Amino acid sequence: MQGSSIPLGYNHPELLKASQSEDTLIALTNTPTLDITLSKDWCKKLENTYLTVEPKGMGNVFTSATGVDPNEVALRATILVHEKSRRFKSSNLETENAVGSKAQRNSKVSFISFKSEVSGGNASSTKADDIVPLQKENDSATLCSFVPFPELKYPLDNYETENKNEEKLCLSSVEKMIEGQFSPVAALVVEPIFCEGGDKHASNDFFRELRRITKERGVFLIVDETQTGVGTTGTFWAHEKWGLESPPDIVTFSSKMQSSGFYFTDELKIAQSHEILNKWSAEPIKLAHSKAVVDTIQRDDLLQQNMRTGRYLMSHLRPLSVRYHRVIRNLRGSGTFISFDCPTREIQQRVLFLLRSNGIMIDGSGTSTIRFRPSLTFANKHVNEFLPKFELVLGAIYDEYWP
Amino acid sequence: MQGSSIPLGYNHPELLKASQSEDTLIALTNTPTLDITLSKDWCKKLENTYLTVEPKGMGNVFTSATGVDPNEVALRATILVHEKSRRFKSSNLETENAVGSKAQRNSKVSFISFKSEVSGGNASSTKADDIVPLQKENDSATLCSFVPFPELKYPLDNYETENKNEEKLCLSSVEKMIEGQFSPVAALVVEPIFCEGGDKHASNDFFRELRRITKERGVFLIVDETQTGVGTTGTFWAHEKWGLESPPDIVTFSSKMQSSGFYFTDELKIAQSHEILNKWSAEPIKLAHSKAVVDTIQRDDLLQQNMRTGRYLMSHLRPLSVRYHRVIRNLRGSGTFISFDCPTREIQQRVLFLLRSNGIMIDGSGTSTIRFRPSLTFANKHVNEFLPKFELVLGAIYDEYWP
Repeated sequence: MQGSSIPLGYNHPELLKASQSEDTLIALTNTPTLDITLSKDWCKKLENTYLTVEPKGMGNVFTSATGVDPNEVALRATILVHEKSRRFKSSNLETENAVGSKAQRNSKVSFISFKSEVSGGNASSTKADDIVPLQKENDSATLCSFVPFPELKYPLDNYETENKNEEKLCLSSVEKMIEGQFSPVAALVVEPIFCEGGDKHASNDFFRELRRITKERGVFLIVDETQTGVGTTGTFWAHEKWGLESPPDIVTFSSKMQSSGFYFTDELKIAQSHEILNKWSAEPIKLAHSKAVVDTIQRDDLLQQNMRTGRYLMSHLRPLSVRYHRVIRNLRGSGTFISFDCPTREIQQRVLFLLRSNGIMIDGSGTSTIRFRPSLTFANKHVNEFLPKFELVLGAIYDEYWP
Repeated sequence: MQGSSIPLGYNHPELLKASQSEDTLIALTNTPTLDITLSKDWCKKLENTYLTVEPKGMGNVFTSATGVDPNEVALRATILVHEKSRRFKSSNLETENAVGSKAQRNSKVSFISFKSEVSGGNASSTKADDIVPLQKENDSATLCSFVPFPELKYPLDNYETENKNEEKLCLSSVEKMIEGQFSPVAALVVEPIFCEGGDKHASNDFFRELRRITKERGVFLIVDETQTGVGTTGTFWAHEKWGLESPPDIVTFSSKMQSSGFYFTDELKIAQSHEILNKWSAEPIKLAHSKAVVDTIQRDDLLQQNMRTGRYLMSHLRPLSVRYHRVIRNLRGSGTFISFDCPTREIQQRVLFLLRSNGIMIDGSGTSTIRFRPSLTFANKHVNEFLPKFELVLGAIYDEYWP
């Protein structure tokens, strides 16, 4: 159940086939510099792979080089589009009293991302921290500002009013942040589930409001599906569930896709794509694997299976969360993208250690969250293998902390 | 002769073998998340591959994810080391009159890179422009400043005094830039040959002085060998020719190595390498190819061959540069890393177009430079194929512009 990056388990026959395909052999042996030399059928291949599963309303795809850069490349794209369309008047912040270099005073565009109020305790930095704003020339700068992601209370039914208010508060922070920036805001980045901040969820209403706010203010909405995408929440893209009236401007992908990049709407079409390609090339070596993943998901109906397995796992976790309520808090999830919070970081680490000692590959996030990230081949029989080991660990934790 | 990224020509048997090896098959099918799950023999593999050709005085290697990021990752490493060692006192630039956000005012560290005075005319941005300084947190910022790279006059023998003065001027710009920065300078990045700025060369004295200046001021010297490395200038690393008393702090590699990363000295050892790995993982898929490249260079004595081919090519280009002196200016090079300047950008583009129409894969840089970047298997017989086509093109250009 490692990360989000194993789509079909280990040594899946279709992935082995992709590894040994002629396309892969050629790409490996004569790695093309994609910004200069495209193969003749490259566009056709992109269509047959990524565009067969494009999120509604997108129509275009751009591939990036590694599993960690699609958000950065997407942000770069929004800068370019802003610069080209001169959507914003240039802001002149220079005053006689200004200190610092020209670069420090002039910030051409800025970004907004989410940050958890309680994050920071984990060894791995949060997703939001990872976004590296781009600062290309000596006389321009881009800045990233952070707004809080909603902290919902569970069970949701008991806290309907509180949670609505919490989401409203966060939305109003977003509005204030956009309006209070020195420089125009090019884009807002949001994950359907705020993963590294501790698998935080928000309501569909929250996301629909985010779309409305950003659209009204000319801010591009980037939906970061690098972890939630490719079937793992029960729909191919997690944001399909929001019921948006108008689509996001950009949807990024990575991990389970085995290659990375982003989908985008026509508004973001850039005349000279070389401006991005120059710096970030695509990953032709793994294209055959991406195709194998999307084809296998369809052939084996893995979205259905993921939903089914998720429901089955939840139906067993729920009674456990009552029986072991001191350890399993705020149980939540969608598909097999399930998580719960431990009372402390110490107990989180102890649970993870004991699970791993029992052969369960599982990881934590935020300050005290434990998260499930199985591959799409994860089925009821695997749940049945997992459950007795999990109960054993929960019992051991109770013996240790509440004897 | 595409880019610097084809090490051994197309479909080299050793690279085909690497593509079909079991290591590659496993890495392709079950791509590891290297920051979490390292294979048991990963360190051994790094030793057997990169450390067999490490630049003198380094001792350590770190691999990065793509062909374009080693410089960025290296810069990030220097930030971390600076932060950890608290080598510099924190600078406090806040004043009552300050405008802009906190991030705009506080720049914790800065970098220096070279920029050509005449660059900017080319479609591809210059190397120096490509360096994206990292700006991780809301309250810190890193800035990159540019200093001019020497513009030597040719033939070198005729302009000895002028060229010495030009280099002195650039070195004094570096000194002034380091001392004039608001924030401490973490690193200076330099290429042994300033590639995208138009294949500009400088003397060994110039580089030795750069090392002295940076060392005296506690600035890390990053030698960017992403284009010049791996045998293409006749020595395995281009900076071997400088005769440095103390080594660079970091040497980056990419392109012909088929994977990317950097070598570094013990001073740059970072306690928790996860801080970088978290963001940038290595490229296990191409490790077997890197090994095939370094092994084949040694087995087939390709450094010697590269020197020999370079001398042979030069011995034919020199008389051509006399006969067609209006087109071939400032002929220069090392190994097969050879280039010349055209009188205008228009003629540069015309020469490139005609060469490509004749089946010669060749590229330009700077405003008017044409550069040779053959693979290491390029031999005298290939030069013999190239020369008559080149003469044909030169003749056509003369007919067109000076009939």
